[in-house]
Amino acid sequence: MKSFKIALAQFSPVVGDIDANVQKMIDQANEATKQNADLIVFPELSTIGYRAEDLFLRPSLTKRSENAFKALSQVKNIVMVFGFVNQTEDGQRYNSAAVMKDGQILGIYNKQNLPNYSVFDEKRYFSEGHQHLVFEYLGHKFGVLICEDVWSLPTVQQLARLNVETALVLNASPYEVGKPQHRVATMSELAKQLNINLVYTNQVGGQDDLIFDGTSFVVSNSGTVATQAATFKEELLIAEYEIENKAFKQGSIAPALDTMAEIYQSLVVATRDYVTRSGFPGVILGLSGGIDSALTLAIAVDAIGADKVQAVMMPYTYTAQISVEDAAEQAKNMGVTFGIAEINPIVNSFMQTLYPFFGNSPADATEENLQARSRGTLLMGLSNKFGNLVLSTGNKSELAVGYCTLYGDMVGGFAVLKDVYKTIVFELAKYRNSISETPVIPERVITRPPSAELRPDQKDQDSLPAYDVLDAILYAYIEEDVSQDNIIAKGFDKDVVEKVIKLVDRNEYKRRQGAIGPRITSRAFSRERRYPIVNGWKPGI
Amino acid sequence: MKSFKIALAQFSPVVGDIDANVQKMIDQANEATKQNADLIVFPELSTIGYRAEDLFLRPSLTKRSENAFKALSQVKNIVMVFGFVNQTEDGQRYNSAAVMKDGQILGIYNKQNLPNYSVFDEKRYFSEGHQHLVFEYLGHKFGVLICEDVWSLPTVQQLARLNVETALVLNASPYEVGKPQHRVATMSELAKQLNINLVYTNQVGGQDDLIFDGTSFVVSNSGTVATQAATFKEELLIAEYEIENKAFKQGSIAPALDTMAEIYQSLVVATRDYVTRSGFPGVILGLSGGIDSALTLAIAVDAIGADKVQAVMMPYTYTAQISVEDAAEQAKNMGVTFGIAEINPIVNSFMQTLYPFFGNSPADATEENLQARSRGTLLMGLSNKFGNLVLSTGNKSELAVGYCTLYGDMVGGFAVLKDVYKTIVFELAKYRNSISETPVIPERVITRPPSAELRPDQKDQDSLPAYDVLDAILYAYIEEDVSQDNIIAKGFDKDVVEKVIKLVDRNEYKRRQGAIGPRITSRAFSRERRYPIVNGWKPGI
Repeated sequence: MKSFKIALAQFSPVVGDIDANVQKMIDQANEATKQNADLIVFPELSTIGYRAEDLFLRPSLTKRSENAFKALSQVKNIVMVFGFVNQTEDGQRYNSAAVMKDGQILGIYNKQNLPNYSVFDEKRYFSEGHQHLVFEYLGHKFGVLICEDVWSLPTVQQLARLNVETALVLNASPYEVGKPQHRVATMSELAKQLNINLVYTNQVGGQDDLIFDGTSFVVSNSGTVATQAATFKEELLIAEYEIENKAFKQGSIAPALDTMAEIYQSLVVATRDYVTRSGFPGVILGLSGGIDSALTLAIAVDAIGADKVQAVMMPYTYTAQISVEDAAEQAKNMGVTFGIAEINPIVNSFMQTLYPFFGNSPADATEENLQARSRGTLLMGLSNKFGNLVLSTGNKSELAVGYCTLYGDMVGGFAVLKDVYKTIVFELAKYRNSISETPVIPERVITRPPSAELRPDQKDQDSLPAYDVLDAILYAYIEEDVSQDNIIAKGFDKDVVEKVIKLVDRNEYKRRQGAIGPRITSRAFSRERRYPIVNGWKPGI
Repeated sequence: MKSFKIALAQFSPVVGDIDANVQKMIDQANEATKQNADLIVFPELSTIGYRAEDLFLRPSLTKRSENAFKALSQVKNIVMVFGFVNQTEDGQRYNSAAVMKDGQILGIYNKQNLPNYSVFDEKRYFSEGHQHLVFEYLGHKFGVLICEDVWSLPTVQQLARLNVETALVLNASPYEVGKPQHRVATMSELAKQLNINLVYTNQVGGQDDLIFDGTSFVVSNSGTVATQAATFKEELLIAEYEIENKAFKQGSIAPALDTMAEIYQSLVVATRDYVTRSGFPGVILGLSGGIDSALTLAIAVDAIGADKVQAVMMPYTYTAQISVEDAAEQAKNMGVTFGIAEINPIVNSFMQTLYPFFGNSPADATEENLQARSRGTLLMGLSNKFGNLVLSTGNKSELAVGYCTLYGDMVGGFAVLKDVYKTIVFELAKYRNSISETPVIPERVITRPPSAELRPDQKDQDSLPAYDVLDAILYAYIEEDVSQDNIIAKGFDKDVVEKVIKLVDRNEYKRRQGAIGPRITSRAFSRERRYPIVNGWKPGI
């Protein structure tokens, strides 16, 4: 029995790029060895990255995993615990962890609890394991768990009953608001309850709609957090177990983030990883003078740098002069390329072409959508010509009720605020202003009543309830599955609730064609909310 | 022991509309009673309809199911076997069948085999049942199975070992090309092997991307098909069991469809159900003079009638005169409203607005996309103004390699040919012409080399391999999961294969924003092909 060091390799794999991920793992293992670590623990499925979806089913994965093992076997003098897809000879496929030292495989563990809810589809890909893996090293008894396993009390209890002192937990636990602290608090309770040390390594980085926050940590069997890695950053965290105290030594603890800082950084990471890993030289977005595009601009600049961000203002007859001014000021504050392209001639040419069809039918949403689609087509034209990705700027409240134009303001490859309610958009704008010496988003952009400016003197609140009311109804209906009747019973206006829910249900087709965007809630409009488009369900009870 | 009659209620539920579905079930039960049926078997989950997705998770489903049971309990003098979501008091949720007579529940069966592959996510919603249900009625021993159960040999074997004479099988088995015959043939083998009669009731109708073909049947324990319902139509099929022969009497057998007829009808049903159940008064589509839009037009007319279909030709400088002529002829042949809207002024206004940004940069795909997006915006304008649904006309080959414009020709709520390879589009066009007295699709539309007409003298084959080669590569890669190396090893040109696969992998983002469309293959671009957009997987082995 001796003291030892464990490295937690909180890194950001590129999904599917096994060669690159393995090289990164080797580099981290070598760095950990330099820092005298005895073991290194990687995230769940670290070789292929999470969530690789149907790549998990590709026949050549066996061969690719073999190559990964071969490459990793060159690492010496450290025990590596890493994740891989384990295709066994009996035709089963497992979400697994290997324990390897000096090229020797000391054990393989197959994940026992496969999440198949929310964003997870693991039963589509994997069979359940039924056995614990326990190994002794340096006189210390280790066990291995993978992500969902550690949230199953019976599974961890069984491991504790095998006299395991320290469980090494490989994770790809997606971010949600407040999740980093929640995770640490829950695991701290569990460690204390079962008298087991938990070494929790989490993936970090954005992968399509998912964000992994990292925030890896070690909790001692006393429930104390011994050390904790940063949130949203790669880090090689070293934890030290002291034999004299039979406990992990108190190490560095990265400070927890305030809620708005946490959300803001999550969106920055998601945007950066999506843009750079898709190989785009930069991004382009439409600035309207409103708060959504202002916030999206700030996030884009913080993600990839002002020199890679292009902003375009596309005014029309109904655009207020102050919108143009505010857009220009935002662009100037953030230091990005800014252009103005009036859409009047385009909208007019659409109207003229449609006149023989429309005749004198009164104006309605059709004409508003023409404005939005003219803008969308301009942005896509600029994107096609210069290669920048279009960022979509709509928020979750709009998308929920369909207050947005398909093929118009919805165009883009990544919808940065897709899972951010409008009330949070305001908070985030204030937060972003608070961290600069001078505010980057002009004050009146935040205080002005929101408007799509698609009609004279239009305000969002002409068509929608006030955003605090709207968001409260949406939160109850979407996030909490509260029925229409029960939302009304909470005291909301009956007509308003019925209208909002009808809009949410009817706009599934629109959301289905929207760009992906980072998930920050427990019920984003992504894989975790799967509704039919043709849907005869009647709201009510 | 006596002779008896079983009704197979091959009907088309509206997903989520439990009240309407239950009323339809009551009507069918009453009709079956009139025809002296002793039992009636409905499809899987008949009260809520398949695939209800996250509606299965709605808290009020328990209460709604209670109401359904109450309504169904008014049916007298017939044993009903129907599907419902069974939420038990211990918090489990099952995909279940109830056996009810005169308001009494004689038994409940929980599905034992839950598919969680391809388009299925049943483990997201349901727990597995572990018990068979056997009941005696009229001196005959019945068992109950639900869909996937009957494809599990051990499950059916166990039922046969319980001396069950007839298994009542409730299904929602989605259509794929050739599936109707394959299903009957497989079940016939099984019935014979296990000496058990199988009464197989299937759902019919379109539900978003899924099509249910019906084709319900009864196979005797000799393996003979006793009776078979039509494909793609609602039907109350009555099967008669004769005690003297201890066998089902030979009844009517709806003729099997030829492959092209089967595919064509599947698309007609899918389109009709999507359009009518979404509440659209009609559809609108762009006619280009090409074969995809010509075929889509024919399907639309056959689905909902010529009076509800509006066609628009939107020519540009590069549009050949014969394209305009052919589009007009198609519209005339099919008897639909036809309009022409030139897009030159619109494209010019886009170009003028973009000139300050583009300068003298050479023309590329950007300018082509402007044409496609001008058309898309016009179609959406007409849709918004008059309420017709836009049908998208792209085919599977195009969508696979991204040979289509996002927010351009991809606009629309329903992409009729989304899962139809171009080579099959040609076959379907010929088939459709063969069933009319005079061809509805002009011959030269079928024989002309395909062109997007976005550049002077452009042909699809300038950018893509010949469609028979392209489709063969796509089929191997998408449907059969053959690797790049192995496709090359089949004898295809290396450069061509590499290019095609690169295009398929890179265009995931485009497909993700495309309209839904009917699934006719075993690997449509829908829920059954889930790939990350940011994806570092390297093709090869």
